[in-house]
Amino acid sequence: MPRHFADALLNAIRDKSSQVLVGLDPRFESLPEEVLRPVVKDYGRTARGAATAYVRFNRAVIDAVAEFAVAVKPQIAFYEQLGVEGLRAYADAVGYAHSKGLLVIGDAKRNDISSTAAAYAAAHLGAPEGSVASADFTVDALTVNPYLGIDGIAPFLNTGAIHGAGVFALVKTSNPSSVDIQDLDVNGQPLYETVARLVDRWGAEHVGAGGYSALGAVVGATYPEELKRLRELMPRTPLLVPGFGAQGGGVHDVLGAFDADGTGAIVNSSRGIIFAWTRAPYDSAFGPGRWRDAVRASAADMRRQIWDATH
Amino acid sequence: MPRHFADALLNAIRDKSSQVLVGLDPRFESLPEEVLRPVVKDYGRTARGAATAYVRFNRAVIDAVAEFAVAVKPQIAFYEQLGVEGLRAYADAVGYAHSKGLLVIGDAKRNDISSTAAAYAAAHLGAPEGSVASADFTVDALTVNPYLGIDGIAPFLNTGAIHGAGVFALVKTSNPSSVDIQDLDVNGQPLYETVARLVDRWGAEHVGAGGYSALGAVVGATYPEELKRLRELMPRTPLLVPGFGAQGGGVHDVLGAFDADGTGAIVNSSRGIIFAWTRAPYDSAFGPGRWRDAVRASAADMRRQIWDATH
Repeated sequence: MPRHFADALLNAIRDKSSQVLVGLDPRFESLPEEVLRPVVKDYGRTARGAATAYVRFNRAVIDAVAEFAVAVKPQIAFYEQLGVEGLRAYADAVGYAHSKGLLVIGDAKRNDISSTAAAYAAAHLGAPEGSVASADFTVDALTVNPYLGIDGIAPFLNTGAIHGAGVFALVKTSNPSSVDIQDLDVNGQPLYETVARLVDRWGAEHVGAGGYSALGAVVGATYPEELKRLRELMPRTPLLVPGFGAQGGGVHDVLGAFDADGTGAIVNSSRGIIFAWTRAPYDSAFGPGRWRDAVRASAADMRRQIWDATH
Repeated sequence: MPRHFADALLNAIRDKSSQVLVGLDPRFESLPEEVLRPVVKDYGRTARGAATAYVRFNRAVIDAVAEFAVAVKPQIAFYEQLGVEGLRAYADAVGYAHSKGLLVIGDAKRNDISSTAAAYAAAHLGAPEGSVASADFTVDALTVNPYLGIDGIAPFLNTGAIHGAGVFALVKTSNPSSVDIQDLDVNGQPLYETVARLVDRWGAEHVGAGGYSALGAVVGATYPEELKRLRELMPRTPLLVPGFGAQGGGVHDVLGAFDADGTGAIVNSSRGIIFAWTRAPYDSAFGPGRWRDAVRASAADMRRQIWDATH
């Protein structure tokens, strides 16, 4: 029997006493000198050099956070930017994180319908048996955009059901202009509440042994009350909460996402962890020479802060 | 001065007397024997073999349609499915189509915010000067999903303005479940009408000399009246109309998308053209041995049918 993504996530949360998701969003200019210098020397300031730097940097970050995080979330845009070589670096991050026992959530926000959505699902959640599809980008769960309705979600859920993989649909994003469409008034409520109900309903047939569905939701934490309301509207839906740390959210802003036992949600931090040595308090405590230790310490601190606040 | 995407599109429509967009959506099992046999012999049924086959097939299709189409639209999902090698084939299709004077619209439906959206824009619409980004995937326009609001569109428009590239935002898709979200009632009208107004407004600052914006819209042609209404709601917005041929739409279903002079829209056909030799009337007229001629004839016929109906 294939495993179930939501159960695997729940087990990881309990095994590691952690609800931490680390975003692998490398930016060339922000990499440590120790990583930058040799690739610039060997390849110049090129896409190939940057891709090589991303591979080395991600592996070091994964080593540093593996003990404290349940999953990593590479944002594929930063890799696509480097073309074919960048996607090779994305595949490397996926494979290396898996080798360290981490779940991997591909942040790709893919969306399309019917056979095209099935092609994306094969690309990211597992190739159909006997097909020519590649396993380069196979992750444990993928973020998707729900604007096309269930036709755009079902192919991902169906592929996920075969491979034990999950899906996180955008419900409410944390950016200021998310109000443009997501907050439009639908029967006296913001649109995103209708989307939340749809997501919880669409996921009903994909609930694992632990009570959560393989269909999760991405919910921004701009207002703590919104998060609490969305948790109530989607009782069986695992929540992926971005915006911790660098994007401004703190522990108290994300508490509403959790169920009473502290499960049901994972919280993402990207720059706040992977570039921790450039930020207080880790900059003065460690500095660029000990950037690996800063990454490790920030992941450990985030794990403890959220775990303690929810237990 | 960099060119403007909408002007380049308008010029191509007039120069070629064509509103035809050909979708490059290869499927391994559907390729002609002549293409399949040698790659299976050399590579087996592998992602690498399939990617090699896609390169050869796309080049032949591009050669066959270049005279009749204004643009091609590779659907990136079919390439992602083959992993890193597949994306190399995508890059090849983009480059080869450009070498034949065709505009290329990347059908990727990307969406994200701020620096992440900027990374996608750099990947697909042009790298910032002095950056490490690659030109592998640089197309003339990209489809995007509007669910995140203007924050998710502006980075694409801004990058496009530098490079003369365009953006097509999903407004109304042609799949049955597009009603799940796109038809929700917002102030007595379907949501997609609000999205249409937003798209036309967002595009206002990006209007070219020909009167059309660099921000276009993807509008499905399920009901001809919807298309007409969307044309009216978005007077300066170029429309990308999918669903011709294989998806069921005919000439009369798409007429509403055009302005009085027959410009303002392009109509996509994918399988109906690239696999024309398997479909009536081209199957009996040509058959698998003359698949290139079937592709050419179907593109020529589609061009003439739509042009004649709009002039």
